Amino acid sequence: MSNSVLYMSMSVDGFIAGPNDGPGNGIGDGGDRLHEWFGMDAEGSHLDAAAHLSGVNRDVMDEALATGAVVTGRRTFANAGGWGGDHHDGVPIFVLTRRQPDATLQWPAVTCVSDVKDAVRMAKEAAGDRDVLVHGAVTAQLALTAGVLDELHIHLVPVLLGQGRRLFEDMPPGHIELEPTRAFSGPGVQHLRYRVRQAG
Amino acid sequence: MSNSVLYMSMSVDGFIAGPNDGPGNGIGDGGDRLHEWFGMDAEGSHLDAAAHLSGVNRDVMDEALATGAVVTGRRTFANAGGWGGDHHDGVPIFVLTRRQPDATLQWPAVTCVSDVKDAVRMAKEAAGDRDVLVHGAVTAQLALTAGVLDELHIHLVPVLLGQGRRLFEDMPPGHIELEPTRAFSGPGVQHLRYRVRQAG
Repeated sequence: MSNSVLYMSMSVDGFIAGPNDGPGNGIGDGGDRLHEWFGMDAEGSHLDAAAHLSGVNRDVMDEALATGAVVTGRRTFANAGGWGGDHHDGVPIFVLTRRQPDATLQWPAVTCVSDVKDAVRMAKEAAGDRDVLVHGAVTAQLALTAGVLDELHIHLVPVLLGQGRRLFEDMPPGHIELEPTRAFSGPGVQHLRYRVRQAG
Repeated sequence: MSNSVLYMSMSVDGFIAGPNDGPGNGIGDGGDRLHEWFGMDAEGSHLDAAAHLSGVNRDVMDEALATGAVVTGRRTFANAGGWGGDHHDGVPIFVLTRRQPDATLQWPAVTCVSDVKDAVRMAKEAAGDRDVLVHGAVTAQLALTAGVLDELHIHLVPVLLGQGRRLFEDMPPGHIELEPTRAFSGPGVQHLRYRVRQAG
């Protein structure tokens, strides 16, 4: 059974990007601090990043790279330069966007989808029995609200960024209960995992 | 050597109170969810709360209650009904406020202070070799910014509140590095501890 799993590096004060994130400025002013634990900048290759890691952090990265499809927001996709059309291993990438696809989205593995439920369903179908990697703050919020996010894997980075883009912003009121499934520490990061308990 | 230690229960999305917190509504709509792990409401007695805890959560509460002074914000103080003038064991309480003290602040253990550096300094003097318990979002932000917060002990509650009052809001830009010192889990809560690395 495939799970949709959010993988995001977040500061202790809840930011997943510094101020002024965008194409050409990656994950924002000072935002690269959040990616130091895996030793890459926002537009680096994930495969290159995994190669030099070891221990817990390597395990986490290997697991993320074992996913069979990616669901990402338009902003995250654009900030990362679309990963050159290949996030890892050429798996299908579903970009959540209501805009018409532009030229940068014409890579063969990339599909534009306007509804988050459709995106997660299509990604799970594409992933088979592998998990789906979910990426991006807006996408996470939409998937949580729509009830289609199964797990949160937060890489908690021991820093206060002060300002930037939050992982959880503009969520509707109403609690979403989480079940901690694992918490473990690697160099420079704490990995916190939760199962989302969908409302009965 | 006395340390100033922030003890706060926080949701995974960064909230320490639900919406509409205030006197009469404690830590806001649904905010009591954050205090379930120690089984009390916002105006309950901390000593009563500790008595029925066991294991890790009991250890954490005992440690908080071994502090020798309290520094708290005006809002946190008011929301909690001023703890009836006695947070625990009658230790001195320093309330950070720029307002003139009103009648509710006339308990003997309570001192109003307008500057956060003064408040922490006075509290450390009062606490002797014991730590100082720091409480409240605004107070935490001011103490961090002023460089007088030594440690963060966050009780991370596995829930997304969606809306409410954030622990870290309106902080100035500029990173504050943290050193993880301990992470451990109790029933219904994960305790994350950090040492604040002051800028050289």
